[in-house]
Amino acid sequence: MLIVKKFGGSSVADKDRIFNVANRCIEDYKKGHDIVVVLSAMGDTTDELLEKAEQINPCASKRELDMLLTTGEQISVSLMAMAMGALGVPAVSLNAFQVAMHTTSQYNNARIKRIDSERIRHELDSRKIVIVTGFQGINKYDDYTTLGRGGSDTTAVALAAALQADACEIYTDVDGVFTADPRVVSNAQKLNEITYDEMLELASLGAKVLHNRSVEMAKKYGVQLVVRSSLNKSEGTVVKEEVKMERMLVSGVAADKNTARIAVVGLQDTPGIAYKIFSVLAKKNINVDVILQSIGRDGTKDISFTVERGNLKEAVDILESNKGRINYKSIEADEKVAKVSVVGAGMISHAGVAAEMFEALYNVGVNIRMISTSEIRVTVLIDEQDVDKAMRAVHDHFISD
Amino acid sequence: MLIVKKFGGSSVADKDRIFNVANRCIEDYKKGHDIVVVLSAMGDTTDELLEKAEQINPCASKRELDMLLTTGEQISVSLMAMAMGALGVPAVSLNAFQVAMHTTSQYNNARIKRIDSERIRHELDSRKIVIVTGFQGINKYDDYTTLGRGGSDTTAVALAAALQADACEIYTDVDGVFTADPRVVSNAQKLNEITYDEMLELASLGAKVLHNRSVEMAKKYGVQLVVRSSLNKSEGTVVKEEVKMERMLVSGVAADKNTARIAVVGLQDTPGIAYKIFSVLAKKNINVDVILQSIGRDGTKDISFTVERGNLKEAVDILESNKGRINYKSIEADEKVAKVSVVGAGMISHAGVAAEMFEALYNVGVNIRMISTSEIRVTVLIDEQDVDKAMRAVHDHFISD
Repeated sequence: MLIVKKFGGSSVADKDRIFNVANRCIEDYKKGHDIVVVLSAMGDTTDELLEKAEQINPCASKRELDMLLTTGEQISVSLMAMAMGALGVPAVSLNAFQVAMHTTSQYNNARIKRIDSERIRHELDSRKIVIVTGFQGINKYDDYTTLGRGGSDTTAVALAAALQADACEIYTDVDGVFTADPRVVSNAQKLNEITYDEMLELASLGAKVLHNRSVEMAKKYGVQLVVRSSLNKSEGTVVKEEVKMERMLVSGVAADKNTARIAVVGLQDTPGIAYKIFSVLAKKNINVDVILQSIGRDGTKDISFTVERGNLKEAVDILESNKGRINYKSIEADEKVAKVSVVGAGMISHAGVAAEMFEALYNVGVNIRMISTSEIRVTVLIDEQDVDKAMRAVHDHFISD
Repeated sequence: MLIVKKFGGSSVADKDRIFNVANRCIEDYKKGHDIVVVLSAMGDTTDELLEKAEQINPCASKRELDMLLTTGEQISVSLMAMAMGALGVPAVSLNAFQVAMHTTSQYNNARIKRIDSERIRHELDSRKIVIVTGFQGINKYDDYTTLGRGGSDTTAVALAAALQADACEIYTDVDGVFTADPRVVSNAQKLNEITYDEMLELASLGAKVLHNRSVEMAKKYGVQLVVRSSLNKSEGTVVKEEVKMERMLVSGVAADKNTARIAVVGLQDTPGIAYKIFSVLAKKNINVDVILQSIGRDGTKDISFTVERGNLKEAVDILESNKGRINYKSIEADEKVAKVSVVGAGMISHAGVAAEMFEALYNVGVNIRMISTSEIRVTVLIDEQDVDKAMRAVHDHFISD
């Protein structure tokens, strides 16, 4: 078997953790498997490098930032190769040039285009563990690029696809994907399996285990992922195209407090008004989520929507500076809201999940302010103070036995 | 003009120094010159990385050590490009892959084979300052190599040769090359010019301004070097093939305390005995310097020589374990010795420099234990405690007005 294993920065933060990872990899190596390891930069290295750059030039060129940041993973991979060497196992570290990991030209947020597998295959053939820098690539100018958030997960999935790996294991500090955040819902259960689509909905809803881009790529290339703990031998959660039929209707409940609600009140009820609002926001790269349009009084209407909490002030400013153009009465902004969602591939064939969710929330007195649904997800916007109560109620209803 | 400027690790150790270097480079850039900057790793970065490696694996593979160490210069060059950006000047950093800087395969101590100048020329043509990682290269396996001691100086000279630069400036924390160490000889003078050969003799004698490999390469490719201070605007010392005729007989006096003396006493006076001694030492990579052979009593002879002080114990051990093969009476080892040398291209045409040196030493009561000469150098081995006195006496005799 060819296994790609990805470990994040906290898994290689110090000497002991580096040796822990080395031993985990060597175990599988000694069973005869080919092992490719993808690493992030150690601990807080990336933040420390960014701080150095910030001191020198707060508006540093993105090209030079990538040149700086890519040193972080190169340090991780070389130290890991040394650790494996100390344990008597031949290993070789490779950076984005050596692989080579071709990306689009965009610095700070490049996308992987193509991976040359020749060098890696050659090293695997000579029975070395191959340790690859995550998060980084090279572009057509022969410059370093970085892949942005969740970049190392994406590197691992792309390598697994390019090498036609038999498994792609994403190691993290939790045991896998849970039906809800165990810190909030005490009887949350670890899922053995989950579909790509469910994982995508959960990731975008703040489950924080896998980054969306890596899941999208895994889905596109049919790479089966395993999310598991680097701290214990628990089996983890398999992320794949289809899961067993007898599965639960709802596979997870997620909360996301990084949201805020804006209501534009008293709009003229004329065509094109929604376009005007959302185009001025889009121009400034403000993403809008749940949208609700309602009829107001005297032939006017209201449009409400959510944005990331960090974008609230800017969004309100933009709307106010376009008041004349959009023509509305007033704006309401509310930060004290949160989204709670249920996700499950089983919903496609089962009507009534939304109604059940609303009932569960009603039973514990949680007021629903907005609703948004997809084929496999129901999201409600509620008051932030109700989040934990809502999570537990919905989880108890759908998941707990 | 195309100017290559090299700055060592202490010149880029912190934010202020980075900006100091950036401003020095920008000054010449604004005069219309093309500027290529070669940097070492910041301050103690290389030592810190080596310490990390040591903790993980004290016998780490050299290939992985180079993979680790090359991150040091990459951090320097990217931060420097950001600093120049902050000062409004376009700059681009390049590592060994991007240049590309081809070396022999040997890790930790590679030699530069060939430099592609295309990328650098392209960046210069678009009026960017080009900042290149010193000390590092890539080999035929597409692996990082490092150049060993004095590597960044060598990078600068090699770049100057490849780009046919008009000047190659090596910045350091002293004003240039002096006739003696100013900390010992208070009236030591800065030299305006010195020949490659003199510089080579002085460097190997511990003058510590330029590494021998870079001077050898400069001589081979006819690259005129300037050694000057990064802290002030003093003119520095030009290192070149020939200097003005009216120059001094002796251009420098150097001391080297990193030496120890071994005497092998009571050897049989038969052919091949010197070969036996020095071949067993050479096999263990112990370099032998000044050698003296003297006739002893009863048809025996003694052979004395010097080694680096750190090699003394190992050298004695080797000789003792080969006692039967070499056949000698006893070994004397002495660490309390030092070399003092006078160097000057003028000596070639002036006999009697050695005699004058011996006289100057006799006048201050310094006992000479061994002598070694080249065309442009006279070296004496003396007691370590006499070094400062000897330096001053010789310097006063030959150099001070």
